Amino acid sequence: MKIAIYGYGNLGRGVECALHQNPDMELVGVFTRRDPATVKTVLGAPVYHISDLPSYKNNIDVLILCGGSATDLPEMTPAMAADFNVVDSFDTHAAIPTHFANVDAAAKAGGHVALISCGWDPGMFSVNRLYASAILPQGKDYTFWGRGVSQGHSDAIRRIDGVVDARQYTVPIDAALAAVRSGDNPELTTRQKHLRECYVVAAEGADTARIERVIKEMPNYFADYDTTVTFISAEEMQREHAGIPHGGFVIRTGATGKEQEHKHTIEYSLKLDSNPEFTASVLVAYARAVCKAANRGETGCKTVFDIPPADLSPLSGEELRATML
Amino acid sequence: MKIAIYGYGNLGRGVECALHQNPDMELVGVFTRRDPATVKTVLGAPVYHISDLPSYKNNIDVLILCGGSATDLPEMTPAMAADFNVVDSFDTHAAIPTHFANVDAAAKAGGHVALISCGWDPGMFSVNRLYASAILPQGKDYTFWGRGVSQGHSDAIRRIDGVVDARQYTVPIDAALAAVRSGDNPELTTRQKHLRECYVVAAEGADTARIERVIKEMPNYFADYDTTVTFISAEEMQREHAGIPHGGFVIRTGATGKEQEHKHTIEYSLKLDSNPEFTASVLVAYARAVCKAANRGETGCKTVFDIPPADLSPLSGEELRATML
Repeated sequence: MKIAIYGYGNLGRGVECALHQNPDMELVGVFTRRDPATVKTVLGAPVYHISDLPSYKNNIDVLILCGGSATDLPEMTPAMAADFNVVDSFDTHAAIPTHFANVDAAAKAGGHVALISCGWDPGMFSVNRLYASAILPQGKDYTFWGRGVSQGHSDAIRRIDGVVDARQYTVPIDAALAAVRSGDNPELTTRQKHLRECYVVAAEGADTARIERVIKEMPNYFADYDTTVTFISAEEMQREHAGIPHGGFVIRTGATGKEQEHKHTIEYSLKLDSNPEFTASVLVAYARAVCKAANRGETGCKTVFDIPPADLSPLSGEELRATML
Repeated sequence: MKIAIYGYGNLGRGVECALHQNPDMELVGVFTRRDPATVKTVLGAPVYHISDLPSYKNNIDVLILCGGSATDLPEMTPAMAADFNVVDSFDTHAAIPTHFANVDAAAKAGGHVALISCGWDPGMFSVNRLYASAILPQGKDYTFWGRGVSQGHSDAIRRIDGVVDARQYTVPIDAALAAVRSGDNPELTTRQKHLRECYVVAAEGADTARIERVIKEMPNYFADYDTTVTFISAEEMQREHAGIPHGGFVIRTGATGKEQEHKHTIEYSLKLDSNPEFTASVLVAYARAVCKAANRGETGCKTVFDIPPADLSPLSGEELRATML
């Protein structure tokens, strides 16, 4: 399988590394809008300018799109799906139906397969919400995120006057997790589910009390949460907060029996040292599925909901049944 | 969707109850080898003798087979797959390839879809082993069972001279779970992973020391485990051990990055008040998928690996993308 990467930030680097773990895949190269001479890849993959991509049209089985959801992917995925089988990690949940429609039209017109919104949420968490709700229709599901770095919230803090650097961790609250696992189907407020831990490097002489107040009162981002703000040095930030960990929990509790007398809990959880590298690993597994679907002659846009699990694996159906069933 | 049940033990009763939670499904009836007059259903479903089944051939979309894996299903599933779309819960892992081949031949010849080895292990645990291993190829996975009742081990104890009743719980060992979650990829012996708790009602005057010794030394069943044996009264057995709880954990830890420097843990767990009712709920969700596959004109034997998650849900692709992705 010949794979190419478009976009080379944290996610693109993760895809490059993940491809090295999959011997049935070969990395054709990294395509970028930057000057290729300025891009150094982690494992030595060749770098090409995006303007060279059309000449690789017949030499790429799947193109993995590593742009951002805010501005890149809404344009990039439909454009690329016209000429390539593609996978993206579009994660703006509310905009998925529109994105799906745009990509589906382009992929069908071009005779290609596109898989959108892949990763872990949307992605593996979505698949687990679906399985659990289909199995336990009389139930309720809960998604918790963290403990992990929220890039969006970190950026929001960095935009505050007097802030040099910031890192925000989303933290699920243990009492809420316990209440959910008990099977009591609690109604939980935003504040009861997660708290937000902020580590901030302030500019010299900045008014830290003001910064703390601006963070805690920021609507949408922090106002609805219990938020802690800790000011640290740039050195401590570098030493203690350089990683991009994340994770979370999808829990569904439900009841069965003559009078719903038996309770059940289905829980799926992730604990990730590197959010972008794990997301990349999911994209790569689904790139294999996209390649198989294209080889079967399928076209159009798909999501993780449409992919049979077997298509993610390099093993044959026979091998899977003998070793994993 | 018109569903029928063949076999009416704990699993069949669970399927009857699960169908009541799924308004898109209708229970045609329960088919049994017993005298139908002697079978009373939980929710009043009609009961027919198995000899009447052929006359329902055109009135059943999916037949859910609720026989046992040891002797019923190896014959029942291929025989039924010739005339019906079927789902079974065949769980003799080592015999799955043979069972698959037999059922596949029968289903293809009859132009039907069969799904075998459905439930939670094999079933949801298998799906999770597959997803996790495809996403983290550099890793190792572990399955733990329990805390839950093992019917096979309980039966083995009941066959000992002087035993009136017995219940055996398989219990995952916390230290082993912790070692696995740490990401250290420990090599664990059988004894390190699970212990076995036995509750036994002895006959009056029976030699309990002998019974305990026979249990603990029983090869395959108990000799390789740390086993506790507690003698209790028939009343206590009835009061404290009437349920059939089960559950377990599928955990994969793996590493990513330039030098595999980032660790990740994927964990799927179940905590079930009723093993047969949960298994039944999985069978019912997959019956929906079998019906969809048959409506698309597919034939032959499938497993949970071959079923796109969306096929388990009563929701449309559009609804799923808008609400669960």
